[in-house]
Amino acid sequence: MQHNAYTEKPVQNVDLIIHATWMIPIIPRDTVLQNQAIVVDNGNIIDICNQGESTLRYQTKELITLDEYVVLPGLINTQAHGAMSLVTTNNSTAKTSLEQHLWPIEQTWCDEAFIHDGLQLAMAKMLSSGTTYFSDMYFFPKVAASAVHEVGMRAQISFPILDASNAWASDADDHISKGLSLYDHYGAHPLINIAFGPYSASSVSDQTLNKIATYTNELQANLQIRLHETVAEIQQSMALSGKRPSQRLADFGLLTPHTQCLNMAHIDDGDIALLQLGGSHVVVCPSANTKYQHSAQRLIDADINACISTGDGTTSKNLDILNEVQLATLLNKPACDDGSTVSAGRKNAITSLEMATINGARALGREETLGSIEVGKQADLCAIALDGLNHIPQHDPINTLTSNTSGLKASHVWVKGRCLLQNHQLTTIDERKLRQRVQYWQQLLSPTSPSVITK
Amino acid sequence: MQHNAYTEKPVQNVDLIIHATWMIPIIPRDTVLQNQAIVVDNGNIIDICNQGESTLRYQTKELITLDEYVVLPGLINTQAHGAMSLVTTNNSTAKTSLEQHLWPIEQTWCDEAFIHDGLQLAMAKMLSSGTTYFSDMYFFPKVAASAVHEVGMRAQISFPILDASNAWASDADDHISKGLSLYDHYGAHPLINIAFGPYSASSVSDQTLNKIATYTNELQANLQIRLHETVAEIQQSMALSGKRPSQRLADFGLLTPHTQCLNMAHIDDGDIALLQLGGSHVVVCPSANTKYQHSAQRLIDADINACISTGDGTTSKNLDILNEVQLATLLNKPACDDGSTVSAGRKNAITSLEMATINGARALGREETLGSIEVGKQADLCAIALDGLNHIPQHDPINTLTSNTSGLKASHVWVKGRCLLQNHQLTTIDERKLRQRVQYWQQLLSPTSPSVITK
Repeated sequence: MQHNAYTEKPVQNVDLIIHATWMIPIIPRDTVLQNQAIVVDNGNIIDICNQGESTLRYQTKELITLDEYVVLPGLINTQAHGAMSLVTTNNSTAKTSLEQHLWPIEQTWCDEAFIHDGLQLAMAKMLSSGTTYFSDMYFFPKVAASAVHEVGMRAQISFPILDASNAWASDADDHISKGLSLYDHYGAHPLINIAFGPYSASSVSDQTLNKIATYTNELQANLQIRLHETVAEIQQSMALSGKRPSQRLADFGLLTPHTQCLNMAHIDDGDIALLQLGGSHVVVCPSANTKYQHSAQRLIDADINACISTGDGTTSKNLDILNEVQLATLLNKPACDDGSTVSAGRKNAITSLEMATINGARALGREETLGSIEVGKQADLCAIALDGLNHIPQHDPINTLTSNTSGLKASHVWVKGRCLLQNHQLTTIDERKLRQRVQYWQQLLSPTSPSVITK
Repeated sequence: MQHNAYTEKPVQNVDLIIHATWMIPIIPRDTVLQNQAIVVDNGNIIDICNQGESTLRYQTKELITLDEYVVLPGLINTQAHGAMSLVTTNNSTAKTSLEQHLWPIEQTWCDEAFIHDGLQLAMAKMLSSGTTYFSDMYFFPKVAASAVHEVGMRAQISFPILDASNAWASDADDHISKGLSLYDHYGAHPLINIAFGPYSASSVSDQTLNKIATYTNELQANLQIRLHETVAEIQQSMALSGKRPSQRLADFGLLTPHTQCLNMAHIDDGDIALLQLGGSHVVVCPSANTKYQHSAQRLIDADINACISTGDGTTSKNLDILNEVQLATLLNKPACDDGSTVSAGRKNAITSLEMATINGARALGREETLGSIEVGKQADLCAIALDGLNHIPQHDPINTLTSNTSGLKASHVWVKGRCLLQNHQLTTIDERKLRQRVQYWQQLLSPTSPSVITK
């Protein structure tokens, strides 16, 4: 064992030390640390200290020096539908898009290869923009989980539950049974957890809801569900059960701290009280909800844990969570007394970053081990260069990260101490092969757009 | 003279041919041309043709091949305050920010060196994000114009007019006289034009407005002015003159096709009618006006020429017009029948791109020569790579450019056929020296942010 020549204390061997100009640990709040070292061993953060001290106290296998970079906790995207990244974004309304465009494609092409390639593309996009942990919900969750395992990202895979049949399962029992087998299979996986994903309260019968309640309660499993996304959903629920969907879920014991509610556009005080009582979480997608931003803000103001996502698959295909953070910061800023609105207050900026880190970890049940840069937590981290011409003078990394700006992409991403993105290069995805597969699907799924004229 | 071996037609010598995978000419509308050549000679677009044909018919000094890139008209930013790019963005409200932060800095530091360096940084940021033409308004407009001339961008420089004194001029007459001398100096400049820039209607007396009207009418000069930005401004005008500011300007003959109205947050039907009657233009900044988006939309719906800007200097310092285009597309999208909102309709996408190109050219009086890729127009162009992992599969460049997305930066920019940005490198700005100057100002203007902890 080596010893530090000055202190005579033993030098500790570690896997990785990161020296970065700035660090935003998220906890404590509203803090930017300058010129600190993050010391990582065996996938965990074991020290945060002065850079000079770090080289005296530790002998490291790898030292990464990031001048003019900011390091933050790996970003968490609490709702994605990865495989949809292969499908054309067309510019119609959600309903038209789903009915005329997406569903036919799903019916024809959505097989295991589609899910694998789509999810790999989605992970490539997410890693390139700093995401380390995402929640995915789509058909063939087993293929999805296996694709995630292959790449080494962290994911919650929600298996779909519907009363109706589809390419993956025949009825509600079949969905649940296949999901439970997946749940057992990934029970001990260090990076992957399986959650229950009924599409919405209106897509499942009381009988199915009851089964879901029994299993999730017994297993303490997570549940992700669309809730109060549309007025029609609420009206339908009232007509059938005399209850709003939130009340119906609560009565089945399904509004708990394990529940993540998606796309809550239409809420009232009663809904808020139920979420508060149950300790449930809300997933917000700013770009899908610009018109319903007031609902998101009400939930945040009511101290319900709100986290952020790239949305429901009919919106952006870029899966860039930092963009959603920027949009949330901008949309929540107050109108000013002089009639204009300006850069969001620091409170908004901090809140938006928390939504994409610690709040996401909390919603996914991983607050103890993820979501901030703290000694004892797992080393899920991302680094972003702030040295571009469009980011100088660099007065405040928190403001830069949360400002409406282009050109910010992650340079490095670590999941449990393993580097999955190094200097903008993916380390566990063969980019050349991925591009070939994407080209294959592009030709299959979308002949040239009608607006493109080939002379 | 060489001849084409097949057609026997003479081969024409030209300066530049650009081969790009996609081109969005803006005119005709809603069009993406694939695999076309843009032929440039003497600063003008002289042909748009098949790529193969272009090499047969023209002998070029330079051939630029841009695979998986899109070329569009150079973007136009119709309101910037370039030198402010040196100042910290702090996260307070506009009024507090101005009074407590910006104005003291301006009083102490705003000299010719500040303007020169700030404007050079602003131009570096704008070129890096595809802008070729911008309108700037700030003190020391002569220094600004000279900085623009040095770099070779295109600009409208609005000289400020105030009744009060400041570092640049002593009273309204002094402002106007200094401005007129600048106007004369730049009369024949191919890239720079000078406009009248009264801060707002309430900052100038009737007498001053009358003088401005006389001169702008006589010279057919452009006028840029804040209008109906605040409720207070309207109330003040009503109290003093019994008229809303729009009516007061109209009565002085100042709402004409040469007038660009900024930040119109508070409008009524009468204001709209006056703008329509006068043929005046409106400059919108989406990120500064998220809360007043309905006003912007009313103006657009009333067929008033609306163009886009990065705003009034208290907002984003990134000066990235494409980001504003993306935000405009997102904010204008309709709420959907199923309660969610999705990717903006194609109409929004097209409108937003037009606001940043042809509408901007129209507002600045250059519609005949700029704002679209058409034979006979000047070769102000920008190119953006669409080959990143976050932009594949690439179904539709219009959708990609206007989607809420990060990572899109210009790779090439030409102004009147001259390349000012080549493969992301500035050709007329010494980036190393610029960074040194920015560092100097950063140290002078903003000691470490209170949130940054240096251990």
